[in-house]
Amino acid sequence: MADILASLRSLMASQSPPLDALLVPSEDYHQSEYVSARDKRREFVSGFTGSAGLALITKNEARLWTDGRYFLQATQQLSDQWKLMRIGEDPPLDVWMSDNLQKEAAIGIDPWCVSVDTAQRWERAFAKKNQKLVQTSTNLVDEIWKNRPPAEINPAVDHPLEFAGRSVAEKLKALREKLSSEKARGIIITALDEVAWLYNIRGSDVSYSPVVHAFAIVTLNSAFLYVDKRKVSSKVSSSLQANGIEVREYGAVSSDAAMLASNQLDQATGVNFGQNGVCQNDTCDNDLIWVDPASCCYALFSKLDANKVLLQQSPLALAKALKNPVELDGLKNAHIRDGAAVVQYLVWLDKQMQEIYGASGYFLEGEVTSKKIPETMKLTEVSVSDKLEGFRASKEHFRGLSFPTISSVGPNAAIIHYSPQAKTCAELDPNSIYLFDSGAQYLDGTTDITRTVHFGKPSAHEKACYTSVLKGHIALGNARFPNGTNGYSLDILARIPLWRYGLDYRHGTGHGIGSYLNVHEGPHQISFRPQARNVPLQVSMTVTDEPGYYEDGNFGIRLENVLVIKEADTEFNFGDKGYLSFEHITWAPYQIKLIDLSILTPEEIQWLNRYHSKCREILAPYLDKNEMEWLKKATEPVSA
Amino acid sequence: MADILASLRSLMASQSPPLDALLVPSEDYHQSEYVSARDKRREFVSGFTGSAGLALITKNEARLWTDGRYFLQATQQLSDQWKLMRIGEDPPLDVWMSDNLQKEAAIGIDPWCVSVDTAQRWERAFAKKNQKLVQTSTNLVDEIWKNRPPAEINPAVDHPLEFAGRSVAEKLKALREKLSSEKARGIIITALDEVAWLYNIRGSDVSYSPVVHAFAIVTLNSAFLYVDKRKVSSKVSSSLQANGIEVREYGAVSSDAAMLASNQLDQATGVNFGQNGVCQNDTCDNDLIWVDPASCCYALFSKLDANKVLLQQSPLALAKALKNPVELDGLKNAHIRDGAAVVQYLVWLDKQMQEIYGASGYFLEGEVTSKKIPETMKLTEVSVSDKLEGFRASKEHFRGLSFPTISSVGPNAAIIHYSPQAKTCAELDPNSIYLFDSGAQYLDGTTDITRTVHFGKPSAHEKACYTSVLKGHIALGNARFPNGTNGYSLDILARIPLWRYGLDYRHGTGHGIGSYLNVHEGPHQISFRPQARNVPLQVSMTVTDEPGYYEDGNFGIRLENVLVIKEADTEFNFGDKGYLSFEHITWAPYQIKLIDLSILTPEEIQWLNRYHSKCREILAPYLDKNEMEWLKKATEPVSA
Repeated sequence: MADILASLRSLMASQSPPLDALLVPSEDYHQSEYVSARDKRREFVSGFTGSAGLALITKNEARLWTDGRYFLQATQQLSDQWKLMRIGEDPPLDVWMSDNLQKEAAIGIDPWCVSVDTAQRWERAFAKKNQKLVQTSTNLVDEIWKNRPPAEINPAVDHPLEFAGRSVAEKLKALREKLSSEKARGIIITALDEVAWLYNIRGSDVSYSPVVHAFAIVTLNSAFLYVDKRKVSSKVSSSLQANGIEVREYGAVSSDAAMLASNQLDQATGVNFGQNGVCQNDTCDNDLIWVDPASCCYALFSKLDANKVLLQQSPLALAKALKNPVELDGLKNAHIRDGAAVVQYLVWLDKQMQEIYGASGYFLEGEVTSKKIPETMKLTEVSVSDKLEGFRASKEHFRGLSFPTISSVGPNAAIIHYSPQAKTCAELDPNSIYLFDSGAQYLDGTTDITRTVHFGKPSAHEKACYTSVLKGHIALGNARFPNGTNGYSLDILARIPLWRYGLDYRHGTGHGIGSYLNVHEGPHQISFRPQARNVPLQVSMTVTDEPGYYEDGNFGIRLENVLVIKEADTEFNFGDKGYLSFEHITWAPYQIKLIDLSILTPEEIQWLNRYHSKCREILAPYLDKNEMEWLKKATEPVSA
Repeated sequence: MADILASLRSLMASQSPPLDALLVPSEDYHQSEYVSARDKRREFVSGFTGSAGLALITKNEARLWTDGRYFLQATQQLSDQWKLMRIGEDPPLDVWMSDNLQKEAAIGIDPWCVSVDTAQRWERAFAKKNQKLVQTSTNLVDEIWKNRPPAEINPAVDHPLEFAGRSVAEKLKALREKLSSEKARGIIITALDEVAWLYNIRGSDVSYSPVVHAFAIVTLNSAFLYVDKRKVSSKVSSSLQANGIEVREYGAVSSDAAMLASNQLDQATGVNFGQNGVCQNDTCDNDLIWVDPASCCYALFSKLDANKVLLQQSPLALAKALKNPVELDGLKNAHIRDGAAVVQYLVWLDKQMQEIYGASGYFLEGEVTSKKIPETMKLTEVSVSDKLEGFRASKEHFRGLSFPTISSVGPNAAIIHYSPQAKTCAELDPNSIYLFDSGAQYLDGTTDITRTVHFGKPSAHEKACYTSVLKGHIALGNARFPNGTNGYSLDILARIPLWRYGLDYRHGTGHGIGSYLNVHEGPHQISFRPQARNVPLQVSMTVTDEPGYYEDGNFGIRLENVLVIKEADTEFNFGDKGYLSFEHITWAPYQIKLIDLSILTPEEIQWLNRYHSKCREILAPYLDKNEMEWLKKATEPVSA
């Protein structure tokens, strides 16, 4: 590790101008959350494996900024050379730079790995002390990274209409209408899921996200896909062609962006103007290039004429978030199969915990003195999560996990995005809470569910905390709200029951989920952080409902369902706004043993019983007799 | 009315440049909510008497923008010549101007009646079509206003320390520290309540607000009060002098602002620099003039060098909102006396309704056929509100009402800020809901309370609505939340029970309240409108809790208590943030008859019973035997 920093610093010094600091973000050229192994530059330099973080290397220091989900994990993974900067507690990067780096410092960044928004924000902040953001011509980390994993050549595949629900032609038509209405003549699409969604293609270049490493450019008349051509079979190629999409090499996006800027991209393909070279319609006024500042890299933006850029959220973000009926059906079906896998897992785990560890099990509250288990029989966070993956893998349309399974015992459950490693992970413990947050990619939908369980005797405090989390989870899921309401307003509903005791959690409450795409999807969210872009919740969006509570060194609790937004069947419609509500599409029981029924309201108990009864009904076709008996017991109606 | 518009248009045409439009805001030179009679220019031109609204007169049109509280009232009061523009539904002013007025239109405004924020926002918006905001050199409305009420000469009085709780010297010291820390050498204070608060003076220039028409300028070394000197007795004058405050004529603020800009104001009084003319401390770097863009008028701002202006919320807004212990004691005491007056009023009204109208009364649910009552015996919205004022006036320290009493029967209660007029107001009705929202100015505090009652048989729908409003009122009042939470986040708590049925209300949920000052006070609020200035709720702030529901043409419901923010006694303190909660300081019963107990949770019933029991205990010393018996009955514990 020391070598890495030393090599980087020597390379920084040899740049022109010499760099006083180097920023290494987590993101790849597409601002992806999950990146392929060869794009894990920030992890390579810092050793921190979390999904979000920003590394800064100066001549004498190395600092890593990350958010509350990762404070514990980062503390454990960062070496002495690194200092953890806690977002929300420590000064943010720009303030730190201004306070600690000298005037006129040169701060390097690979412009392919940073968004326009972030780069411009940094430039403004650094300007206060005449510090400069310097775009490096190569990625310095790549240069010193011996044994960097090679680029994988994974095939791109068609995502058929029976799952996509909407043809490429329809999507392109809607996109071009949007371009016209915003006076744009083209858009550069850099987010991998937007490319995959628009062109109805999928791939396996990135773990957990079925996307292809690719860019797209769409103009009023043309459409391009920039991708390593070796990934595109003739079958895929011809279906792309059939939709007027030309496949070009991945690297060509750079020069094509410049061509687009000088209005030569369409002309080069001869389709922008009519055969006589005369504008055919009223779209010739359109002279803007649309770029989403949150996802487009600074490198591509720099190819454009800044005065002719429409810096605005990509229209595909919302289009993709509004699921069509086929996608909604698929999502619901995927979540039923997924729920069945989770129940099968719980049944299996319950049995193992009793047989191997002598635990009282899922239903009974008994203490057990921990005993030595032979190494071969031990259950570990990783071994049980492999089993969970197995149950999912047996289901129709399974294509892999949608994110690294969080399988965490006791104190590890307090690490919000804990990812157990085979060598270091903990053993299951009948006296500790066990939290698992997991999901899968199915051809018909992406899933994400969290349950928290105890196979022995939970403490009164653990029960009180679990119940408060559950109350927040129910309050949010049961909310009805007028059109126009955003997730920032709703977030408090999930926290109020925790706040009552002075408890809280350091993460948002909900994110959109893709259709066989990214497990975290915008543009909406449910969060205590005000959104820069105020995107109200809308009918046919998906969103998770996942409050939690984490006690460092002790335990963690989180409950997560996926919800679909639908019109609410309210008695009145004040202001003619239309009211919305949520439909739960996740099916797996909450552990009654962990609930302090005395602090649930009659309405909450009624909701719980109704949800449990639906679980039974919906999952029945997927469970064997033994599993079904277990589920019946787990979902027996309760009363206060 | 036609004359007014015609005269204005002819005056507009004679300006240089001729005006294509004239804006007439509601505000006076101090951006006050309540203005004196001679400052009611917008009311004079439009006939609309609501507290908020903006009139626009063009060559051919007259339009009035106002918010949801006033839609109904404006519809009733505006003549045919006027068109109502509903804020939130119709295009906002700037959009309308851009869409409907020609390019390069000249739009006139009296720069004394518009804030810096608003004027700059308009200028930016108008610039899109090269339209110009023109500062008129006189107020055109004043010029055509025959019989404009004369300026009143009301004495300014000292607000003694036993009520103010903090000396002028302390307040000035804290203010100057704030100026220094922001590199400012002076501040122009234009909000009337800030002037009154800072200098511990009160007056009676404006109805409902015990303020003096005055400006203040405070520099690091000097302090000035700009006021009609006839209002300042020698006693007040000498106590101001004792605090180093120089009294100057009201109109002198204009030239003094210019002097301040050129750094001659302190020199003129010989106190900025030491006797040898050399800077005495490290404050000589401070070269900014602090101006609150939301309250400072554009006229004064225009006297300054824009590059040397600190446009930022006045530090007095927060200082004033954080009540000191003496103010909090005063507020609590004032609210007890005020609650006693409200109970006395209810007892009286209950008796009258039964005796005069044969109503079943406050406690029983009986229908009554309406009968003709002799004119002299009739109860009207105005006559009963006069009685209410009488009960208040009998209380210690009473100094007048804090806003026009809203006393409204049936459909009138759906007009959110209805103000009954003697000639046109409705008669009380035993078969209709009656809503009263009222408050008073007492030397030790300002009050504001709303209750909604029915003296006959309320419908099931009215009960359901009342109960939903009550549920929201309780949910907000019972909330605990971490430091840093703002009112925008909490607002939803008061709405969720209404949203469940598709109901809502078109106003904010809470505002701060002054200490013998304005009944509406910032800088915090509880509202669904995101705040431009994010001011979190903080210990010792006051805030109202007033959800409602209004059914046009039928009835209106609102419940309002004043809350004080205090530290919450939570079991835990996650994140070491410190948790806050509310203390109700308003004391008057909710009408049990209007509550559908079956939709209250056990916690809500428990809260209601506890609140009622405290009402009894706290108000007892102020009530006679008969009143106390009534209150006992009104506050009897209930169960589901």
